[in-house]
Amino acid sequence: MNRRGLEELLTRVRRGEVAVVDALAALGDLAFLAPGYADLGFAKPDLHRELRTGVPEVIYGEGKTIEQIVAIAERLAADGQNALVTRLDPDRAAALRVRVPALAYHPDARLAVLATTPIAPAGEGTILVASAGTADQPVAEEAAYTAELMGNAVERLYDVGVAGLHRLLANRERLAAARVIVVVAGMEGALPSVVGGLVAVPVIAVPTSVGYGASFGGLAALLAMMNSCAAGITVVNVDNGFGAGVAASRINRR
Amino acid sequence: MNRRGLEELLTRVRRGEVAVVDALAALGDLAFLAPGYADLGFAKPDLHRELRTGVPEVIYGEGKTIEQIVAIAERLAADGQNALVTRLDPDRAAALRVRVPALAYHPDARLAVLATTPIAPAGEGTILVASAGTADQPVAEEAAYTAELMGNAVERLYDVGVAGLHRLLANRERLAAARVIVVVAGMEGALPSVVGGLVAVPVIAVPTSVGYGASFGGLAALLAMMNSCAAGITVVNVDNGFGAGVAASRINRR
Amino acid sequence: MNRRGLEELLTRVRRGEVAVVDALAALGDLAFLAPGYADLGFAKPDLHRELRTGVPEVIYGEGKTIEQIVAIAERLAADGQNALVTRLDPDRAAALRVRVPALAYHPDARLAVLATTPIAPAGEGTILVASAGTADQPVAEEAAYTAELMGNAVERLYDVGVAGLHRLLANRERLAAARVIVVVAGMEGALPSVVGGLVAVPVIAVPTSVGYGASFGGLAALLAMMNSCAAGITVVNVDNGFGAGVAASRINRR
Amino acid sequence: MNRRGLEELLTRVRRGEVAVVDALAALGDLAFLAPGYADLGFAKPDLHRELRTGVPEVIYGEGKTIEQIVAIAERLAADGQNALVTRLDPDRAAALRVRVPALAYHPDARLAVLATTPIAPAGEGTILVASAGTADQPVAEEAAYTAELMGNAVERLYDVGVAGLHRLLANRERLAAARVIVVVAGMEGALPSVVGGLVAVPVIAVPTSVGYGASFGGLAALLAMMNSCAAGITVVNVDNGFGAGVAASRINRR
Amino acid sequence: MNRRGLEELLTRVRRGEVAVVDALAALGDLAFLAPGYADLGFAKPDLHRELRTGVPEVIYGEGKTIEQIVAIAERLAADGQNALVTRLDPDRAAALRVRVPALAYHPDARLAVLATTPIAPAGEGTILVASAGTADQPVAEEAAYTAELMGNAVERLYDVGVAGLHRLLANRERLAAARVIVVVAGMEGALPSVVGGLVAVPVIAVPTSVGYGASFGGLAALLAMMNSCAAGITVVNVDNGFGAGVAASRINRR
Amino acid sequence: MNRRGLEELLTRVRRGEVAVVDALAALGDLAFLAPGYADLGFAKPDLHRELRTGVPEVIYGEGKTIEQIVAIAERLAADGQNALVTRLDPDRAAALRVRVPALAYHPDARLAVLATTPIAPAGEGTILVASAGTADQPVAEEAAYTAELMGNAVERLYDVGVAGLHRLLANRERLAAARVIVVVAGMEGALPSVVGGLVAVPVIAVPTSVGYGASFGGLAALLAMMNSCAAGITVVNVDNGFGAGVAASRINRR
Amino acid sequence: MNRRGLEELLTRVRRGEVAVVDALAALGDLAFLAPGYADLGFAKPDLHRELRTGVPEVIYGEGKTIEQIVAIAERLAADGQNALVTRLDPDRAAALRVRVPALAYHPDARLAVLATTPIAPAGEGTILVASAGTADQPVAEEAAYTAELMGNAVERLYDVGVAGLHRLLANRERLAAARVIVVVAGMEGALPSVVGGLVAVPVIAVPTSVGYGASFGGLAALLAMMNSCAAGITVVNVDNGFGAGVAASRINRR
Amino acid sequence: MNRRGLEELLTRVRRGEVAVVDALAALGDLAFLAPGYADLGFAKPDLHRELRTGVPEVIYGEGKTIEQIVAIAERLAADGQNALVTRLDPDRAAALRVRVPALAYHPDARLAVLATTPIAPAGEGTILVASAGTADQPVAEEAAYTAELMGNAVERLYDVGVAGLHRLLANRERLAAARVIVVVAGMEGALPSVVGGLVAVPVIAVPTSVGYGASFGGLAALLAMMNSCAAGITVVNVDNGFGAGVAASRINRR
Repeated sequence: MNRRGLEELLTRVRRGEVAVVDALAALGDLAFLAPGYADLGFAKPDLHRELRTGVPEVIYGEGKTIEQIVAIAERLAADGQNALVTRLDPDRAAALRVRVPALAYHPDARLAVLATTPIAPAGEGTILVASAGTADQPVAEEAAYTAELMGNAVERLYDVGVAGLHRLLANRERLAAARVIVVVAGMEGALPSVVGGLVAVPVIAVPTSVGYGASFGGLAALLAMMNSCAAGITVVNVDNGFGAGVAASRINRR
Repeated sequence: MNRRGLEELLTRVRRGEVAVVDALAALGDLAFLAPGYADLGFAKPDLHRELRTGVPEVIYGEGKTIEQIVAIAERLAADGQNALVTRLDPDRAAALRVRVPALAYHPDARLAVLATTPIAPAGEGTILVASAGTADQPVAEEAAYTAELMGNAVERLYDVGVAGLHRLLANRERLAAARVIVVVAGMEGALPSVVGGLVAVPVIAVPTSVGYGASFGGLAALLAMMNSCAAGITVVNVDNGFGAGVAASRINRR
Repeated sequence: MNRRGLEELLTRVRRGEVAVVDALAALGDLAFLAPGYADLGFAKPDLHRELRTGVPEVIYGEGKTIEQIVAIAERLAADGQNALVTRLDPDRAAALRVRVPALAYHPDARLAVLATTPIAPAGEGTILVASAGTADQPVAEEAAYTAELMGNAVERLYDVGVAGLHRLLANRERLAAARVIVVVAGMEGALPSVVGGLVAVPVIAVPTSVGYGASFGGLAALLAMMNSCAAGITVVNVDNGFGAGVAASRINRR
Repeated sequence: MNRRGLEELLTRVRRGEVAVVDALAALGDLAFLAPGYADLGFAKPDLHRELRTGVPEVIYGEGKTIEQIVAIAERLAADGQNALVTRLDPDRAAALRVRVPALAYHPDARLAVLATTPIAPAGEGTILVASAGTADQPVAEEAAYTAELMGNAVERLYDVGVAGLHRLLANRERLAAARVIVVVAGMEGALPSVVGGLVAVPVIAVPTSVGYGASFGGLAALLAMMNSCAAGITVVNVDNGFGAGVAASRINRR
Repeated sequence: MNRRGLEELLTRVRRGEVAVVDALAALGDLAFLAPGYADLGFAKPDLHRELRTGVPEVIYGEGKTIEQIVAIAERLAADGQNALVTRLDPDRAAALRVRVPALAYHPDARLAVLATTPIAPAGEGTILVASAGTADQPVAEEAAYTAELMGNAVERLYDVGVAGLHRLLANRERLAAARVIVVVAGMEGALPSVVGGLVAVPVIAVPTSVGYGASFGGLAALLAMMNSCAAGITVVNVDNGFGAGVAASRINRR
Repeated sequence: MNRRGLEELLTRVRRGEVAVVDALAALGDLAFLAPGYADLGFAKPDLHRELRTGVPEVIYGEGKTIEQIVAIAERLAADGQNALVTRLDPDRAAALRVRVPALAYHPDARLAVLATTPIAPAGEGTILVASAGTADQPVAEEAAYTAELMGNAVERLYDVGVAGLHRLLANRERLAAARVIVVVAGMEGALPSVVGGLVAVPVIAVPTSVGYGASFGGLAALLAMMNSCAAGITVVNVDNGFGAGVAASRINRR
Repeated sequence: MNRRGLEELLTRVRRGEVAVVDALAALGDLAFLAPGYADLGFAKPDLHRELRTGVPEVIYGEGKTIEQIVAIAERLAADGQNALVTRLDPDRAAALRVRVPALAYHPDARLAVLATTPIAPAGEGTILVASAGTADQPVAEEAAYTAELMGNAVERLYDVGVAGLHRLLANRERLAAARVIVVVAGMEGALPSVVGGLVAVPVIAVPTSVGYGASFGGLAALLAMMNSCAAGITVVNVDNGFGAGVAASRINRR
Repeated sequence: MNRRGLEELLTRVRRGEVAVVDALAALGDLAFLAPGYADLGFAKPDLHRELRTGVPEVIYGEGKTIEQIVAIAERLAADGQNALVTRLDPDRAAALRVRVPALAYHPDARLAVLATTPIAPAGEGTILVASAGTADQPVAEEAAYTAELMGNAVERLYDVGVAGLHRLLANRERLAAARVIVVVAGMEGALPSVVGGLVAVPVIAVPTSVGYGASFGGLAALLAMMNSCAAGITVVNVDNGFGAGVAASRINRR
């Protein structure tokens, strides 16, 4: 609809030729233009994000002051939304809890949650989070915990890297039973390819920064996963357990 | 089951204490160890891949001789499988069709298909393939066509890049109606972030090599998509329309 | 304005409490939601781009078929817009002119233009395009020509690289007289820093792929320009004369 | 003018055929060769920089000792110039203020100022500084504060990243009203492309190091901005709010 | 063997036509499917790794908590395996020894060992570990110590970099006498090429992160070794003395 | 021995106090200083390389003119050495055979051989060359053929990539029976990690440039192999089948 | 001298208090500001470059049209300067010679020369150009030829790479006798380190793009040379024989 | 000379047909094979390095323990050599001086010296060390101090970066008067190109890690210097003032 069309529509509304309810429908998602966010000056928490994307507004914990996190979390809580803070190290979490005692911190996933609303089960199946090594666990936990917060049933299968393939093969039934699999691996990042060749369900690969030297902070694993010979693997950012959890949740939702 | 368990099981089978059918069940996916592949010497087409992963064996068209492609395609056809050849340029496709006239070539997706079995509808919803610019179309077509070959209903929404945002916003209903969205974009690769912020369904981002200079063959788009601020975007390799089509199909399958 | 506000507004329009013209103003740029583009299936030429950004829709010439370029150009012409095609090599330009004889091709800038509307002078001052070496000329011409198509007065100052500094210093008056300076340089990309230290006007740096070895296709020049010690230099993509011309035009416009 | 011309000119001056004032004009900017700088041994503060470029000499705060910063700042103050110190962390700022109590420090922009001269309004319009996320704020503040120090009117529009597009669209009037827009974004750096497609004014993109993993310290955002599909975006270095402020000021000046 | 073959085999076992022992042989390494690992939840120590690969399960020391290392080491010890912990810094080693006093720590190799079984001599010849500079020593010691733990005789030849070639040439007999040579070098990584051109035995090159600037954390040395003009050099990861020790041991074993 | 020692030795030889044969022994490998090479001006073929390293002088086929290759090959033949030319494409091979008809060309390995001496069996066991995909075959053949030319028994196991793991597992006996395994893989390069976790013998990984997009010409596979979680994998350059063949031969020799 | 000083000087010249010749001396290198270049529009050949830098203006052959090269070469010739064209492939050289028959082309160095003035001996010693392999010869010849054109005595020592160290050691006297050594090497670029450890004279390292895979077009050699453990090696761009020849000439000049 | 030639020579010495002195000459630099180094186990200080290369053995201060540095320095002192320790931070320097009080530390160059022999003037001219900014001073001082330790006359010209070109131009006489110029610059690294275009003497460029964001630790400056359009610039590693000092000394020596 262009300006002239809009002018015409308004004119016809005025003339009573078009009902308000029909005009609303014709204008469709003008609501998209409605604010739908709070304005704190330094931040504009998106109050409609869950409505649009099914994922609540999340507070990225790095690079913000404690005061900023507190203000955003409280604003979300005031709106009846559960506030999730990611990538929060223990020191900052402690400082935060002084200010917001109701906040629950999960150090092994570096996540904090200010839960004001109970989490309703949302997924249709199970999300399996598999990891290659013990050092990948924090990222795997971030994925698992995120998916749980969004109402999904989550299983964990850790330390099944390809150097000891039988550990994975012994768990093939669990792989096959999942609705989605999140595969977390550092170093050479080979596990998603092997998993992807064994199952028919969606596989989300999460490279981690576990490794040294030519791992280049997880770049080696990321590139490997990008080039997987097993068709249909998709990849998220290095150490992005949160993103994998959300992606798995989007798949499992409907 | 370890070696001793196996010995015991076999002993009990011998003694008639365990029926063959129960022993088979107990041994479970020993079939995994069964060949399940043809051995052509230079290649071992995986005849069980579709059974395991839902995706038929696919012939990666680059770096193979025409003779090799012919041999693999014919072997798959002999097994009653549809053979898909990816990344096949027109010249090689022409040479291939001289040898295998039944092969259908789709130049705008650089795909060839030797179809011996009708494609059965498999997906639960619609896969929407969106692209940022016209030059991204071949990759988008590869994704769309791959998904169709796997039995999915596919819609296309092309040239809706962020420089003219209204083109995308005008099609928000189509975005929201899909079960999965594949977003194909080169240059700065911003489209998946915008789409991911508008919808709740899974979004698979495909960077393309469209661009020049500091696009570094699609690296810029790939990195952008990896770092998307819209939670839950997953990414495949540069120009990997095929992989995105398979991933979308895995999601849409069940 | 949210949905309720909109409903209220429409209701008041219907009641005659608000005039159509005032409702239009209140709804502001709802026109943004209006299509404003043509839908050719494979492409959606943005017919409102010039209205929004002052820059007409431009056809990126790489990765499109001749047929696609023709269709878009003709659609723009039908809308009374001048169609500009960038990054078009001579062979494709020749093929294009067979189909659209009215198209003018400028090989030294790799640009083609289908002009249906005379270009009106638009800028307030002069845009000076300076280049470091003769091999940088095609990129410099792309910038200069683009700016001229947008109604700007353009001057050229070529081959004034820092290895012979007096060539630049002898032209300082011309530098100082410009409203904007576009500086095009390959290899070590030092020229923008020197120019930026001499003048007070905006300086747009364009790295080129001129060079070899550790120039990495223009990356060396790009990084140098990014790190300029002369405050206030801004940079565009490698070989992106077009973008520099547009940026200069945006500055010079008002 | 070459040596012979100079000899002739001097001869004519000697003969009284040319007035001193005319000879001065003919020799033009020989003043360029004049020192115009202080020599502190370890540094040569450029006392003419503002005359030439409109930007006062600025002290890059990293890699200098407190003593060096003090000496340069005092030398500039002695010359009646406002001294600006960039990239100064709080600890060093505190150490500096012990030595120069008149220095004002702005921690959210990591800038210090020793103001000896009042700032005169210099710009013709408004500079709008927009940021994608809250974590980008320090860089945005550096840009905004720098522009203010140079006499410009500055507006701030923070946390309008593309994952919640309506926050940006709701502020389109403010975007359209600016003379220049500085867009600050980390992660995938998509915001400048979207802004660039909405407005006709110059857009300066500032990538930030906000992000992790494949953000590679801001490289992802930088590359994305370089490859923007919105024509005419220019880019400065990662986290270079200062440079963006200066560039915006150069544009807004005249 | 496929499922039908397996069914037939079991049927014949049942009928007494095939002996259990022969069935076992026919089923071969079904034991591969046997667990062969302990499941600690967060980790699955591979108890069969030494049986399969000749290398005992090793605990990668980075990214694990002290508790996790203790649990894995004790589980391995319970299985009668020597536990080796790599990349363990002195602080964490001290914390570990509080919990497991029997653990021996070798700070110059950043290795800890919980030895429960005496090491039996296993190699056929001598492994020579050569290093280019004194700063490469920790990596060289990691290689040497790892090889010794696997039962090999090891010699050390340190600080024989190519800037003083006579130091290497004076030790050519020692080079020639080895069964395998591990060459450890940072900076330009030239030593393996020179050694590889002098001897006929296998040469394993270990790049180190010794260097600065354009060494990029060992990338320069790694690339140099990859491109060695001396045929037959193989390379391990930057600073991966452990991997080189294992590789040398694999070669020397049989 | 220093100069004075040498002078003393010579004096004692002169005096008859030391026999010539003993002086020769004392001077040891002075032969190292002997030319041992032919001087063709543009090249200095190393006639002693086989004596020193067990690997004959090899002609790197790229970047040389046909005339240069002919001259070097003939010089080696004159010395009774077999001349091997690597990385020789078919066109250049044909041009070469016009000049040296006795040259045998193996197009699938891009190798040519001018054999003047029969190849004697040299290895103690078998070298197994495994490849992940059919497109990796040329590199695998280069490795296999090189090893055969050096007198080794070679087996081939092609197209056993990890997307269809059973193809590899079905051949575990062949893996276990080898003295050395060369594993050739492009794309994500995961195969060596899996093989390395199954066997105890040395594993040499060869990344190939098979792949596209973020494979970056084999870099992804190279990095993956460098970061293998299976201990003791060593790696050669991308597409360097020749180097892997030589390294395997060095291991298998003694 | 600042503006006031200049005014004073001119006044004193006018008054006859200062002689013209003394004023000229006082004004020193004002000649620097004199044009000293020809203006061809697309190029500004620097006619004073040899006077300033001792190196004549050189025509970079890539990215220029034949017409442009002809025009610049003829302009230099008109000024009595020898014109050197670098990086000129045989096809373009042939086209050039049709237009300028007096031009001499040296295909093995990809250089062309239009000599109008005899070359006078200029150096104090000998420049030795050493190369690692035969494929490095074109770059080595470019260096050697360039140095000869500037009047230096040049020696060549080719194919002395470190895989056969004795070839280099046998020529140590020639290394020691040079005034400067240019060392040209591709692949791992180790030769300059070895040479630098043997001699006391300046060593200029030239990486070449000889190699494949992880040589990344010469980057591996470049980084290796940058990180040389032999103190005092300096490096030029990949394949930049010309630059090395000029640098050696600058050293040898005085 | 090969083994047979050596045998013959020795035989003739024995027969008295060749004098010892002549045999010595014929054997030439067999002394090269003489140890000429001390063996401390962990290190082999090269006692002949100064004889061969004119540069004394230098202790690279990073990655060594205090004990190792002490032992090497004392061993060099015992040999009458001045020991230079580079890249030594103040804390380690203090620890070192506790052990070796005679050691002099120069914090602004991060160098320590244990001088046991007076430094004799060695150079023929002056080495000028120029730097672009104050933050580059530590690297410039390292170069200057190193050159002084080797007996050269050194001048310093600091803070003459290209953003204020007149500071450099005002010192052109000093540039022209030097025998060698070391140019130290971070950020965009443009200064060496400008200097190289002004003078005829050798120019050694030293990139520094001064900068942030896309400077990538000095990579931007390094690449710029590598690609200098001023012919004959040579480059050393990032922050390698020491290497530049040695290179300048090698040039100035003879």
